Amino acid sequence: MAKLTPAQIKTALAGVPEWTKKGGAITRTYQFKDFPAAVRFVKTLAPKAEKAFHHPDIDIRWNKVTLTLTTHDEGGLTEKDFTLARKFDEL
Amino acid sequence: MAKLTPAQIKTALAGVPEWTKKGGAITRTYQFKDFPAAVRFVKTLAPKAEKAFHHPDIDIRWNKVTLTLTTHDEGGLTEKDFTLARKFDEL
Repeated sequence: MAKLTPAQIKTALAGVPEWTKKGGAITRTYQFKDFPAAVRFVKTLAPKAEKAFHHPDIDIRWNKVTLTLTTHDEGGLTEKDFTLARKFDEL
Repeated sequence: MAKLTPAQIKTALAGVPEWTKKGGAITRTYQFKDFPAAVRFVKTLAPKAEKAFHHPDIDIRWNKVTLTLTTHDEGGLTEKDFTLARKFDEL
């Protein structure tokens, strides 16, 4: 899976407007009503990540969950990151 | 719940040797066999945090989970943090 070019990243980002590019990664923060709801969301997204064998960094801060996606093997963003971001957006 | 003194923190830390003091917080990183096991651990600890209404920062990095406890209202460590750390140690 090849690292995306800046132009490809720009196009891919337009398809996932809730996500923000941060360095060589994309990130989205979700807000829930409380901590149990935040943990339930993580439980729901986990099988999607495991199925793709591509795992976001997950930060839980009470009712907020921040997901960060990057392709460590390529040292940057690949189509894999955006495919998974789109899957999370369906949740 | 009062902020602990440095002497009280030293005593409390001796009771939870797996935890490390970092600034005004304590932290522990757990390692599991894979990502689903890491997520299961978070699912298991969540009710304990919710019951205490004291929520650690939770960082999931594939098979590793880092918990960070502090008492934001007091701007540092209180007995609440160590009580919850001991509960997590029972998991």
